[in-house]
Amino acid sequence: MKKIEHVGIAVSDLNQAIDVYEKLLNTDCYKTEHVESEQVKTAFFKSGENKIELLEATSPDSPIAKFLAKKGEGVHHIAFEVDDILAEMERLHNEGFVLLSESPKKGADNKMVCFLHPKNTNGVLIELCQEIKWL
Amino acid sequence: MKKIEHVGIAVSDLNQAIDVYEKLLNTDCYKTEHVESEQVKTAFFKSGENKIELLEATSPDSPIAKFLAKKGEGVHHIAFEVDDILAEMERLHNEGFVLLSESPKKGADNKMVCFLHPKNTNGVLIELCQEIKWL
Repeated sequence: MKKIEHVGIAVSDLNQAIDVYEKLLNTDCYKTEHVESEQVKTAFFKSGENKIELLEATSPDSPIAKFLAKKGEGVHHIAFEVDDILAEMERLHNEGFVLLSESPKKGADNKMVCFLHPKNTNGVLIELCQEIKWL
Repeated sequence: MKKIEHVGIAVSDLNQAIDVYEKLLNTDCYKTEHVESEQVKTAFFKSGENKIELLEATSPDSPIAKFLAKKGEGVHHIAFEVDDILAEMERLHNEGFVLLSESPKKGADNKMVCFLHPKNTNGVLIELCQEIKWL
């Protein structure tokens, strides 16, 4: 776990939230991206070495739609950057954490990602992410 | 807003959570602190340039006890480091955000802090913090 890569926030209306977070963080949103596999639209802000990611559901079946229905808007996950996602998945599995996928999946922002079940992390959804680098 | 200073996580049992986060982050908790004014015990971990703060209530009247009763364990707040907390409080007030105290309060980890009402920040409790430096 090298560092916090980003904190993900579930929102109902991405454009409204972009306006709020541009004022809050005093910086412009630098990228929006539609992640079809997760049925979300995302918006990114830089904050020092980290990022804030806003997430809006694009379908009622999206994990973000289910989160909003259950808990309302708020922090959805904390993502940690790792150097070797497969090795870190193995280490955490051996420590007793429950991985939500057997192999990394393609996430937003050019990353391979894997989530840990929040039941083992005091209610916090943890994402591991590693940047995809093409040779 | 310079950077994310820490992410605060509300937990029911600090010692149990310290054990979990030492395994998760693969690093030792480097400090615990009792913040009497907020009725919390806290534990800190380094993660790159940021910190993870675990918070356990020491009284049923603690804001953390109320959070746990309403929402259960999970992310409680995101804290952003600022250079000049008074100037940032004024800027955010003028942008329409609602401050939860009129002046900064003494927080954990040698910081002056002020929180923003989550109703204006898409459900996220935001903390501003500035390190106290004695001349």
